[in-house]
Amino acid sequence: MPDSALEIAGLLTDRRVIVTGGLGFLGSNLARLVAGAGARVTIVDSLLPRAGGNRMNLEGVEGAIELLVGDVRDEEMMRGVVAGADVVFSLAGQPGHLDSMVEPYADLEHNCRGPLAVLEACRHSAPEARIVFASTRQIYGHPDYTPVDENHPVRPPDVNAVNKFAAESFHRLYGEVYGTSVCILRLTNTFGPRMRIKDDRQNFLGWWIRLLLEGRVIEVYGDGTQARDLTFVDDAIRAFLLAATCPEAGGEVFNIGDARGTTMLELAGMLVGGGRRGSFKLVPFPEERSSIDIGNYRTDITKIRSNLGWEPLIPLELALDRTVAYFADHADWYL
Amino acid sequence: MPDSALEIAGLLTDRRVIVTGGLGFLGSNLARLVAGAGARVTIVDSLLPRAGGNRMNLEGVEGAIELLVGDVRDEEMMRGVVAGADVVFSLAGQPGHLDSMVEPYADLEHNCRGPLAVLEACRHSAPEARIVFASTRQIYGHPDYTPVDENHPVRPPDVNAVNKFAAESFHRLYGEVYGTSVCILRLTNTFGPRMRIKDDRQNFLGWWIRLLLEGRVIEVYGDGTQARDLTFVDDAIRAFLLAATCPEAGGEVFNIGDARGTTMLELAGMLVGGGRRGSFKLVPFPEERSSIDIGNYRTDITKIRSNLGWEPLIPLELALDRTVAYFADHADWYL
Repeated sequence: MPDSALEIAGLLTDRRVIVTGGLGFLGSNLARLVAGAGARVTIVDSLLPRAGGNRMNLEGVEGAIELLVGDVRDEEMMRGVVAGADVVFSLAGQPGHLDSMVEPYADLEHNCRGPLAVLEACRHSAPEARIVFASTRQIYGHPDYTPVDENHPVRPPDVNAVNKFAAESFHRLYGEVYGTSVCILRLTNTFGPRMRIKDDRQNFLGWWIRLLLEGRVIEVYGDGTQARDLTFVDDAIRAFLLAATCPEAGGEVFNIGDARGTTMLELAGMLVGGGRRGSFKLVPFPEERSSIDIGNYRTDITKIRSNLGWEPLIPLELALDRTVAYFADHADWYL
Repeated sequence: MPDSALEIAGLLTDRRVIVTGGLGFLGSNLARLVAGAGARVTIVDSLLPRAGGNRMNLEGVEGAIELLVGDVRDEEMMRGVVAGADVVFSLAGQPGHLDSMVEPYADLEHNCRGPLAVLEACRHSAPEARIVFASTRQIYGHPDYTPVDENHPVRPPDVNAVNKFAAESFHRLYGEVYGTSVCILRLTNTFGPRMRIKDDRQNFLGWWIRLLLEGRVIEVYGDGTQARDLTFVDDAIRAFLLAATCPEAGGEVFNIGDARGTTMLELAGMLVGGGRRGSFKLVPFPEERSSIDIGNYRTDITKIRSNLGWEPLIPLELALDRTVAYFADHADWYL
């Protein structure tokens, strides 16, 4: 059984792979790896202003990946794109829990109608393709218990999570009714090179990295004891590759995460440590964030560990080092 | 504590009540009753071709109800409509499980974006209003156990149910985040005067009634042993009134149904009996229906019985008699 992400990606050599949202953080890392393993990769990305799409994310591999700037909601276009695809990574969307509350219709369009259009396109033009959908642990809302497994009740705490769960449900449904081969991954906070660090809209860690690089003080909300479950992008991508290639992943929903839980305070400490210069302070929770904050969070990854043999392999401190080093070299692409 | 629907409706005398989808089956029955009790009622209905809206549903009460033909997705319009409202019954939508599979985007627009626009309008213009949302037991999918209570896992078996659950989730969310006063009712098969009997798109019972009235043979799918949970519209409306007026209903989700479960065969027997002439036969399940059929169904109504004192009061045979008699008199309005 292949173990490293590159070995698994080798199973996709010469295969036709579509990555929607492929100019974004996860999508670009995934597309780069899969293209490097010899897959024929097409990216569809509409470069939504607030999403994480960035042309620089393909720097150095432009020739190896076909890029189509377009909106996945255009089903006619997507029918053409997915024709003959073996795998479709459905990652296009508009992250941002706060934004979704301010602009709920836009969130509905991009996070619900968009993935639905990809499914419809595949149903018509690529009925044999495996579709891997990127969902979020946010759908569980304030956890009744931790670690949170896949059977935890779904209580979306923001508009984004409502729409992500609806999109998940479309995938499960198309699997059951049309026999579409689907796999859903529920991600926790994912971080790494090529993430969005411009502002704090989508990911506090990207913002912290920016503050660190600019020599500014990192602000930790509340008392810093709230636990977050972080996944390094290389680990996350290995999960996507397993989801795309393992027969046992078909029709399944898996949590991914690191299962240990790290407090915001510990994380801030690691970030300003490790030979870097930086500082952080505690500040009160902004009101609009506390209303949708999900509190302590730890993920139960028993299912994906048992069924697909996945678990995070890269230590958190090493992952942070690699992330900060990447942005130290390429900050100008992301600010 | 008031018991009859009319007594409860009396609590809304002089109140401003909005009924979206108020030309439809449930909406018109509700609007008629509430207007009769002296509420100031405004109906918003876009008369979607496939939905149940019918101007004849307001026959005889046109002067007592303000009717606005418009689309609830128009949030600007809705802000004006709901201003000053005490209660908003959010019933506009596009029923039809089969239709939702054929036209998933239309279903998304009407069943997800529509109710979201009503919520947004209320958040801006009627933050104190109680919003009662009509959801469906369809969201539970094939039941793991019966009777099905509100904690049963949600596994929508068709696009319509995905969107209805997303709309439900928006209501719960707006309650939690913005303090909007919401109540969600999950309906089973509801029937009665003013239902849609034109075709079998939305409700098998309406179609059976049409066949009966036209002297045609009723077709019962499969072996007829599948159980359905039926609610007579007068009982359903009493639940809506309690949901609108009981403080304890705020923020809650309730099943309504009759908890007994009736087989299709028993129901067909009652329909062609009761002094009426008619006949039925068993036919195989059409393929496109068996793929989304939810199997046997019985509702657990313990929660609404305990919290709001609701239970169905009208015997099934009497309810069927009243329904058939209504359509025998007014068939021309509905065909």
